[in-house]
Amino acid sequence: MSLCESDSPTQQDYTRVNREVIDLLEQIAGAGSVVVGDDLVAGYACDEMPVADYHMPEVVVKPGDTVAVGRILQLASQRRIPVTPRGSGTGVCGGCVPLYGGILLSLELMDRIMEIDEDNFVAVVEPAVTLANLNTALESHGLYYPVYPGESNASIGGTVATNAGGMKAVKHGVTRNHVMGLEAALPTGAVIDTGGKFVKSSTGYDLTQLLIGSEGTLAVITKIILRLGIPPKHMEVLFIPFEGLDDAVGAVPLILKEGSLPAGIEFMERDIIGIVEEDTGKEVPHHDYAAFLMVILEGQTEADIHEQAGRIEKVCLDNGAAGVLVPPGAASRRRLIEMRESFYPTIKRSGPIEVADVVVPRSRIPEFVKQARSTGERHGVPVISYGHAGDGNVHVHLLGKDLDPSEWRRKRPVVMEEIYRLGVALGGVISGEHGLGYEKKGY
Amino acid sequence: MSLCESDSPTQQDYTRVNREVIDLLEQIAGAGSVVVGDDLVAGYACDEMPVADYHMPEVVVKPGDTVAVGRILQLASQRRIPVTPRGSGTGVCGGCVPLYGGILLSLELMDRIMEIDEDNFVAVVEPAVTLANLNTALESHGLYYPVYPGESNASIGGTVATNAGGMKAVKHGVTRNHVMGLEAALPTGAVIDTGGKFVKSSTGYDLTQLLIGSEGTLAVITKIILRLGIPPKHMEVLFIPFEGLDDAVGAVPLILKEGSLPAGIEFMERDIIGIVEEDTGKEVPHHDYAAFLMVILEGQTEADIHEQAGRIEKVCLDNGAAGVLVPPGAASRRRLIEMRESFYPTIKRSGPIEVADVVVPRSRIPEFVKQARSTGERHGVPVISYGHAGDGNVHVHLLGKDLDPSEWRRKRPVVMEEIYRLGVALGGVISGEHGLGYEKKGY
Repeated sequence: MSLCESDSPTQQDYTRVNREVIDLLEQIAGAGSVVVGDDLVAGYACDEMPVADYHMPEVVVKPGDTVAVGRILQLASQRRIPVTPRGSGTGVCGGCVPLYGGILLSLELMDRIMEIDEDNFVAVVEPAVTLANLNTALESHGLYYPVYPGESNASIGGTVATNAGGMKAVKHGVTRNHVMGLEAALPTGAVIDTGGKFVKSSTGYDLTQLLIGSEGTLAVITKIILRLGIPPKHMEVLFIPFEGLDDAVGAVPLILKEGSLPAGIEFMERDIIGIVEEDTGKEVPHHDYAAFLMVILEGQTEADIHEQAGRIEKVCLDNGAAGVLVPPGAASRRRLIEMRESFYPTIKRSGPIEVADVVVPRSRIPEFVKQARSTGERHGVPVISYGHAGDGNVHVHLLGKDLDPSEWRRKRPVVMEEIYRLGVALGGVISGEHGLGYEKKGY
Repeated sequence: MSLCESDSPTQQDYTRVNREVIDLLEQIAGAGSVVVGDDLVAGYACDEMPVADYHMPEVVVKPGDTVAVGRILQLASQRRIPVTPRGSGTGVCGGCVPLYGGILLSLELMDRIMEIDEDNFVAVVEPAVTLANLNTALESHGLYYPVYPGESNASIGGTVATNAGGMKAVKHGVTRNHVMGLEAALPTGAVIDTGGKFVKSSTGYDLTQLLIGSEGTLAVITKIILRLGIPPKHMEVLFIPFEGLDDAVGAVPLILKEGSLPAGIEFMERDIIGIVEEDTGKEVPHHDYAAFLMVILEGQTEADIHEQAGRIEKVCLDNGAAGVLVPPGAASRRRLIEMRESFYPTIKRSGPIEVADVVVPRSRIPEFVKQARSTGERHGVPVISYGHAGDGNVHVHLLGKDLDPSEWRRKRPVVMEEIYRLGVALGGVISGEHGLGYEKKGY
């Protein structure tokens, strides 16, 4: 989000970037790190939002360190030029899109892993380090970063700015639970440090937590202190068909009450399974059932995994499951996870879509999913939902492929608004892990 | 803390409570809930701070609901009367002591458990519900609240206001990780709701997290949505003597790297063991060793506990432990935990003391403990430390029993300041779980 966007100013409130500003930016960041020209900055005009919307920055600056970030912000504040910070651009809500032009502050050069502290299970990273790069670097240290938002090319700075969640939040929590401290540059150019290499603190307001999820509207994050964990030695995936979503979601608290703590519990329905089958040409086992849970187990021993799986099987069979499918080996286990991860790209390939990322109390999932679907039906827009049954985070997709473009443009915001209202009415919020960006601001 | 204290006003900046204000308070909260008179309000003049310091409120008000809390705050803001919210008064830093007189806002009547939601593992409570009362109520639901700050009579509102931690933070985290939402009254009287019955949210600034640990300086918390867990079916405690603190603390990352996640890992040295032995007249096994770890294991099966204990034993014996003591039964296990819990009350009984609650990165514990001790020696003040090895939270105690009172009064703040500086120099902060209260404000 633009730093100055909170009171929804218009383009006219801002100053344009002129030659003098570009010279000053070059003095700060080095001539090679300042990019102008429509063809060169075009790659920074959108993110992975399903309904792509292009906003060109006037200039792209790629500072190499915190001091430069602070000086750029100070300059922009003095000249009233909007600034949009950007990580790796894998967001889906337009959070890094320079809606008001101005300076696109790309943190891509700040991609160093500054420290891996094996004694304290801490990594200190610059914002553009990706989840994939961090976990690769951690391997030889016997450590890992357990937050798994599904997009391993996401920059860690971006996951902090949006408080990214993901599939494994049931056990490991969200980004917020793993950030121990930050360095950030304020709009004035001042640099602050928050937190440190410790979990506990009762010393003043928690500015770390205030900055997490603030989507760049308060400060630009320039360094992140992350809490690491020990990678599980064993894992298993259970695929569990049910006659209906009520039974499937109803089994979740019972699974947890048995004392198992799966890394993730996903739910899906027949509709999305059918779309994946059509896309891949491969049949998903038990595909005739109405609803499914996918339970991801992690453990340090095989015995522990077996024991957990046995308890979950019993609970599910006692509560309406048609069976519990355990993939016969690592390859089919991987295929199951990949099937789940393919949902979004497969739907995206199907034609124009729109995505909502609502969170409701876990027990309200079936109600929300059914009402979202019938909202779509009422307007003639197919709606497909799936998501994280363990934490109530539902990804709702509107499919536009069978609508003509003007009808789609007209109906899309109407259905989205109704779905958001529905989520809030059921005790939820409109974004669980994607952030608001500018795309959801109106809601 | 007083709501208006942030810029350190003096008593003269405030208005006194007069008859008219008392009448208005009675209209808001009911006549029976407004208390005046030195003998009646004296119980609200201090907390459990080791160096007791009495500050009398002018009036004690005990509102019964959120609306009344809001109206009291509004009245106080209009009349410029300081307000100090108070839970159960079990804090140790003076956070609930009415330093500037005025209104003591006791939340003691707001002690209802409003909801226990078995499907979503959520409890909604008023602030004066104690940890003990909540866990008793949760028993029949097969749920529990895992944060364990050691004082089960603490009000939940107080643990939220201070972000209380405790012994089991290694596995379960601190209060901050278990609060999903809040209702709070602002100084204007307006009531806000934050968060909800969900773990994930990427929807705007996280006001829940901002209020947690703010010690009543931003708002008065009137309702708390808590995330619950499943109580462990089995537990074990390991008591592990080492030749020195370096070895003991050095074993902690190795234990965790083996993939065990104990609920708590405590460290202690011979000095505190000696004091406890003297106090109880009972010998602690292996008491000749220099340092000890106490590892608290939780699990859903006995097999899991055994397996964890076996791995920890191996790691500790490979890294300088003299042995691993497993208590022979539930009674001796309980005695071990009680011994650890008796440290603070035993030290408190020994004479005048002072306590610091510093957090340093886990690996800096030995360095911090040694330097804190030698700081004390240099000033002739005995210093004893113990604490949470798993999270770097060290409780440092200054013992005043052998100093004459004037010497103690003179040296105490000097040694405390040096110890706080030391903690910060080692990358830490001055409070890990107690909060600042007014007692640490100067530091």
